[in-house]
Amino acid sequence: MSAPDEPNGAPADNRPERSGGKLPERLFEAGTEWLRAGGEASDVVLSSRARIARNLAGQLFVHKAAPTDLRLVLEACRDVLESIPLGARNTWLELHESPAVERSLLLERHLISSQFAKGKLGPKRRSNDWPRAVIFGLPDERSAVMVNEEDHLRLQVIRSGLALREAWAEADAIDDRIEAGLDYAFSPRLGYLTACPTNVGTGVRFSVMLHLPGLRMAGEIEKVKHAAADMSLAVRGFYGEGSEAFGDFYQLSNQTTLGKSEAQLLDELAEKILPEVIEYERQSRQRLLEKRRWQLEDTVHRAIGVLHHARLLGVDETMKLLSIVRLGVCLGVVDTIDVTALHRLMLLVQPTHLQQAAGKNLAQDGRKRERARAVRERLAAM
Amino acid sequence: MSAPDEPNGAPADNRPERSGGKLPERLFEAGTEWLRAGGEASDVVLSSRARIARNLAGQLFVHKAAPTDLRLVLEACRDVLESIPLGARNTWLELHESPAVERSLLLERHLISSQFAKGKLGPKRRSNDWPRAVIFGLPDERSAVMVNEEDHLRLQVIRSGLALREAWAEADAIDDRIEAGLDYAFSPRLGYLTACPTNVGTGVRFSVMLHLPGLRMAGEIEKVKHAAADMSLAVRGFYGEGSEAFGDFYQLSNQTTLGKSEAQLLDELAEKILPEVIEYERQSRQRLLEKRRWQLEDTVHRAIGVLHHARLLGVDETMKLLSIVRLGVCLGVVDTIDVTALHRLMLLVQPTHLQQAAGKNLAQDGRKRERARAVRERLAAM
Repeated sequence: MSAPDEPNGAPADNRPERSGGKLPERLFEAGTEWLRAGGEASDVVLSSRARIARNLAGQLFVHKAAPTDLRLVLEACRDVLESIPLGARNTWLELHESPAVERSLLLERHLISSQFAKGKLGPKRRSNDWPRAVIFGLPDERSAVMVNEEDHLRLQVIRSGLALREAWAEADAIDDRIEAGLDYAFSPRLGYLTACPTNVGTGVRFSVMLHLPGLRMAGEIEKVKHAAADMSLAVRGFYGEGSEAFGDFYQLSNQTTLGKSEAQLLDELAEKILPEVIEYERQSRQRLLEKRRWQLEDTVHRAIGVLHHARLLGVDETMKLLSIVRLGVCLGVVDTIDVTALHRLMLLVQPTHLQQAAGKNLAQDGRKRERARAVRERLAAM
Repeated sequence: MSAPDEPNGAPADNRPERSGGKLPERLFEAGTEWLRAGGEASDVVLSSRARIARNLAGQLFVHKAAPTDLRLVLEACRDVLESIPLGARNTWLELHESPAVERSLLLERHLISSQFAKGKLGPKRRSNDWPRAVIFGLPDERSAVMVNEEDHLRLQVIRSGLALREAWAEADAIDDRIEAGLDYAFSPRLGYLTACPTNVGTGVRFSVMLHLPGLRMAGEIEKVKHAAADMSLAVRGFYGEGSEAFGDFYQLSNQTTLGKSEAQLLDELAEKILPEVIEYERQSRQRLLEKRRWQLEDTVHRAIGVLHHARLLGVDETMKLLSIVRLGVCLGVVDTIDVTALHRLMLLVQPTHLQQAAGKNLAQDGRKRERARAVRERLAAM
């Protein structure tokens, strides 16, 4: 690997520059693309995400592989991924070496999955026995790749608002660059091979994070879920698979990728299903505004009152309150608060971000107090 | 009745000057003694009241009498009552002639009973068939006499805080002056005769309006009620008999007057029972402060938040919130609000006072909006 023709005679390393391996300081204070509160239909769509699952040819799937195998995958992937700019600069973090608080911070920022953060791969494997990493682009954390999650590679590109095509184009371009450096497991008959059969084929999953307070207040969320299930769409919570809806935020995604091209999946979601859901939510909101204006104003202002005055705030309640205030801002019922600031608050009130900002570990009661204090302080500054 | 020796030859009237018969304008904006927030133990005791029931000798009890009989009683009583100063000036109001809104205003000010306000005497008698009046002293409304309520005369004297002896002394003095002008129904064996046997004897009832949020939060209110029942005490709501507890305010009163002297009743209540209840409530509050300080502060500040921000407020909820804020003020958890202002708000948010202050009749929804607006405005001015 040495390059004797280097002028200064130092051993050259033609591998791309490595990105530190440490969590950037004060990451918790930066904004992320998915909370930017911009883009099309951002009154209803928080963010759009394209995710691609890939595996390396000739390597055991993650749940079958030994730690030594996974370490080889990690190294092979790192070399290629570090050479692809995922933002102004890349950050590579090896999670089997990182403390729980760091993993939790990444989860709260939607950079890694819940399973990846917890570090439980099957019944026996613990976090430090599971070589795995995430690499993401700074400063906006728009693109990220998990290495050795359920699949060897899980690439995601997130865009604010309704922008599935843009997210997909960007993910597709990154995927091409990765494929130029790594040999993917691919079957001419089935397409890209993945650990879970639901991802076989394109390996692509599209999802959007929707804010549906209007439909929830109108009691129509179950209807949306049933309709989604009929169209093979999954409705999930704020932190994806297995998580609960948090303050009226729901993740809608396609469930199967086999037998459909990316273009078909995109057309279905972006042209047909999402415009309908968005319209349905907007109509519910308009009905609230027209038929129950006083109740709506009361609900929104009470939420502001509690956020301004409470001395103890749990994360679930805070998200519910922020969700209601977000609705009020979108409908013009409140004009003293801006959505971007609300979104930052949504991230700040998460348990790990809260403790990072406070600079100390806190038990549950302490977190409730600190959360109330932080919310009060931020709202007062708006 | 003419006095020919009058210098200007005008027909003289030796009856005392009459007091108008109209509700003083803007009465609803004045403070009343029972909401003055002063006196002994005013952290727990809102007000103390002595009430005396009397009937005229030789006249049928109110529920047996015809309207013409009641009119005679009214006239006889008026002559005497107008001559006794119940305050800086007296106001005489005949309720069979007054509109429902006026009666409701008097009820909200605790100047008349709920039955007296509604004007239903038995199944057939309607408000305008029931000659009845109230006379009270202005400006503090400390002393008042209902004529033709359940008894011909129902005198009450109210004092802020724990002041049963003072209230009793004042009521006793007024009663003596009335008795000097009217012949009371009295039995040497039974004492003063009254329409309801529970009042026979002294005809005296003592009551205190207690604020018991500490005991309610500690889940001990039922215990207090049982203990009170064992001591022949009644626990009633904010508007006396048949009314509900309203924002942790409870009226405690002796139930029977037969066989006990006023001095015995007073000693029992003022020296024994009330100091115990007050101590019990104070201990509950201290325990909240010591063991659940954060929850207490949270509850109090949330109440302030809702009062400051809500756009719709029902009267029950508002009283509950004001009660919690009052607790916070008494415990020093809040220092920006004063109890007297809170008490004024407690009166202002009552449905009729609210509409009087707004200068218009409002349906229930309109009242909720107006109440929220008025509370917001007053709190902002504190």
